Amino acid sequence: MADNFEISIFGGGNVATHLAQEILKHPELKLKQMYNRHLTAIQGFGNKTHITDDLTQILPADLFILAITDDAIEDFSEKLAKFDNLTVHTAGSVPMNVLKTKRKGVFYPFQSFSKNKKQINFQNIPILIEAAQPKDLKFLKKIGEKFSNNVIEADSTQRKALHIAGVFAANFVNHLYLQASKILKNNNLPFDLVKPLILEVAQKVQKIPPKKAQTGPAVRGDIKVVNEHLTFLKDENQNKIYKLLTQSIFKEYKNE
Amino acid sequence: MADNFEISIFGGGNVATHLAQEILKHPELKLKQMYNRHLTAIQGFGNKTHITDDLTQILPADLFILAITDDAIEDFSEKLAKFDNLTVHTAGSVPMNVLKTKRKGVFYPFQSFSKNKKQINFQNIPILIEAAQPKDLKFLKKIGEKFSNNVIEADSTQRKALHIAGVFAANFVNHLYLQASKILKNNNLPFDLVKPLILEVAQKVQKIPPKKAQTGPAVRGDIKVVNEHLTFLKDENQNKIYKLLTQSIFKEYKNE
Repeated sequence: MADNFEISIFGGGNVATHLAQEILKHPELKLKQMYNRHLTAIQGFGNKTHITDDLTQILPADLFILAITDDAIEDFSEKLAKFDNLTVHTAGSVPMNVLKTKRKGVFYPFQSFSKNKKQINFQNIPILIEAAQPKDLKFLKKIGEKFSNNVIEADSTQRKALHIAGVFAANFVNHLYLQASKILKNNNLPFDLVKPLILEVAQKVQKIPPKKAQTGPAVRGDIKVVNEHLTFLKDENQNKIYKLLTQSIFKEYKNE
Repeated sequence: MADNFEISIFGGGNVATHLAQEILKHPELKLKQMYNRHLTAIQGFGNKTHITDDLTQILPADLFILAITDDAIEDFSEKLAKFDNLTVHTAGSVPMNVLKTKRKGVFYPFQSFSKNKKQINFQNIPILIEAAQPKDLKFLKKIGEKFSNNVIEADSTQRKALHIAGVFAANFVNHLYLQASKILKNNNLPFDLVKPLILEVAQKVQKIPPKKAQTGPAVRGDIKVVNEHLTFLKDENQNKIYKLLTQSIFKEYKNE
């Protein structure tokens, strides 16, 4: 017979909602309970599982998933200290050991969860797992692999490194898109013009390492064009960003 | 009857090759001639058009397209000064007026042309056009619209702005992907982990403006996480980039 596990979710935000939806897709998993300080955020699950805003009503399960804000994890976990089951948090930058429960772990799906998105397909989303005990790690792997093709064991340092890599590859990248859109707008050109290029660059590094995919004046060592661009950029902030990233590219390729 | 135009291409690099291939797709256009200093680079077109490395052999056409390196455009155009037809260059950062021909213009397809790619679909690639005379602009528009759905009139300043926007949205973005890959490698994690996120972010700004698409610790004003990340980043260069882009995001959203 197939495994049959009971999982409870704590929290009412994006991660909580998407994980709860995912659990409901798997007949061999049972969404035992959802808890949130305010019932309104989880009311939508009222006809699918037991929902509560009362800590005295928490039922034991095989796994508690804390999908709450980073700063709340430590204090909240103290309230679950009497339970014998495994408790995990879902945060990239919070060490496992802040958990005050008997058995602890981390279950970190690495993707930006937008509020807009109604359904998330976890299949290609990496899930990083960690646990204090080997048997709990094995269990988290089993659950993770029901959701995703990409479940990876990682300690708290590696998880933080991935979080930071994500800041570079996603948050900062989006900010550069914003700077591009401002430069275009100042010159009465639509942002639409760079959209195909943005997609092409993102698609390219799916196949070729970024080190090899680099193009542009900096990697060509084209000082003349770089200086023309710096003269053109009157915005001090844009000028600084252009300078720093160009220097960084120069350094990276100077011996090649 | 349909228009019937004769176009000659000068150059043997990526842009020259892709433009020549595109012209050959349109029965109403005739690839009159290809010129390059070295015949080897254009030999593949020998059975489709007249190829030459001899400037005295240049034939008149309706349009000369100079797809040669930026620095060569001015001098080379002098050698075509005796022709009465329109001559354009294909460069983002070169003003139209460096051309020494009687009739001048620019035909700038805005995309990074990789050597690897055998065929380019011009349909979604923006083409920026400029011409000294209105009738030539009209003619370039007609040709451009045979290739692309996105033909835009832009002066030399706008073309430079677009080029710079492309440096931010493509070249610098790729460099941030590289930094992410280094951070991961230093922590024994594969670059594969951020690939789905990279695609998601690029796809998101196809629909939502980057200003609204921003996520991450900086836009949340999460100083605690920002400081943890800066402590984690021992590489001085990565630390500088993190700091500057985080400050830039703070500035952008501080009054919101």
